[in-house]
Amino acid sequence: MDVAASSEITTVGFDADDTLWESEAFFAVTEERFVALLAPWCASREVADALVATERNNLAHFGYGVKGFTLSMIETAIELTEGAIPSAALAEIIGWGREMMAHPVDVIDGVVDVLDTLGSHFRLVLITKGDLFHQESKVAESGLADRFEAVEILSEKDERSYQQVLDRLGIGAAEFAMVGNSVRSDIEPIVAIGAHAIHIPHSITWAVEEATRPNEAAQPWTTLESVRQVPGLLGVG
Amino acid sequence: MDVAASSEITTVGFDADDTLWESEAFFAVTEERFVALLAPWCASREVADALVATERNNLAHFGYGVKGFTLSMIETAIELTEGAIPSAALAEIIGWGREMMAHPVDVIDGVVDVLDTLGSHFRLVLITKGDLFHQESKVAESGLADRFEAVEILSEKDERSYQQVLDRLGIGAAEFAMVGNSVRSDIEPIVAIGAHAIHIPHSITWAVEEATRPNEAAQPWTTLESVRQVPGLLGVG
Repeated sequence: MDVAASSEITTVGFDADDTLWESEAFFAVTEERFVALLAPWCASREVADALVATERNNLAHFGYGVKGFTLSMIETAIELTEGAIPSAALAEIIGWGREMMAHPVDVIDGVVDVLDTLGSHFRLVLITKGDLFHQESKVAESGLADRFEAVEILSEKDERSYQQVLDRLGIGAAEFAMVGNSVRSDIEPIVAIGAHAIHIPHSITWAVEEATRPNEAAQPWTTLESVRQVPGLLGVG
Repeated sequence: MDVAASSEITTVGFDADDTLWESEAFFAVTEERFVALLAPWCASREVADALVATERNNLAHFGYGVKGFTLSMIETAIELTEGAIPSAALAEIIGWGREMMAHPVDVIDGVVDVLDTLGSHFRLVLITKGDLFHQESKVAESGLADRFEAVEILSEKDERSYQQVLDRLGIGAAEFAMVGNSVRSDIEPIVAIGAHAIHIPHSITWAVEEATRPNEAAQPWTTLESVRQVPGLLGVG
């Protein structure tokens, strides 16, 4: 649905990781350390590919988040080195997991202003997925919690879970616009339930989140370059 | 508050792990395998103590659940063996984590009948803590979800998070009774906010959940032997 053509929107949902604050960048830094750790055994391309393959496989078992990622790194390291990796190196990987969990929240430029502007005109909700413990910590640490009427942490972002959120909010799909960086998680399911989707690509996207719909011309959503453009698109900027 | 003396109760909350279905038993089985794995290096008591110490330390970093437990086992194994544990054994530990995540839900005897009886007289809510992904899987697989008006998965069960649940339900503390096996998580915070608490001890309790209040005579809650006694206590059995 074309956002600009709609004056029905009452509620704006924001994704959190890589929409409100940086996330993938910390995974990328850790992945670089992981590649360096395995350099004595494997080429970096091979390490990166094997890690994504393990992550994809483990998603169904462990879900999203740093803990599953940490377990996937350990598993990949053992496999790729055929057990030759010293266990002290694996302890180091667990330490990286703890560091990622504790990393300060880096709110993306412009987010605070945009939320302040939108907050006078719309109900704002934060809708994120992944590890409950880590997401709650990040919401608290971001200082943004008070700007949202509700914080919804989902185990998966799909048509069903978004519909449940709208039901809890007591609103119809036409009243709702979702802002996020992942086509797979923030955009496609939103379009599918008949709500408005605003895509703000992030410079780094996790391979598992990559878009499944490559045909740009046919995209039934709006793509913006920066979160700063959201108020203008919604007619309040 | 004495449950039997109250006729105000409108809503009954149930803890899930070790109240509706078995959980700690699967951790205990895995811990036995872990102790056996480390037997060439350490006595079983030493392994068990070191694991609980690592778990306690990691709780603040990783939160509750199987993934944090799996990381704690790996870390403990590396520490106790001073890095001598072969990494293939660590891969086995990750496999145990996957098994625990996928383990069939074993609903405790009497639970289905009790929920059916209570459901005609009270609003029922499920209130659990831990890993969102795993808890949602277990709720779905248990077949019990339809019996609850709401399912609340919290990262921590404390006075603040319980009060938020009551606020979402729109009820006062005096209207609410919580049923659970953990004094620390299901009972003490409930008593502290002025609601009714019904303790049903489970045969196995995780060391971290052990009661902090040893004085049985002074306990301001009701202790039952079996979930089957809950309807009677609430005057509908």
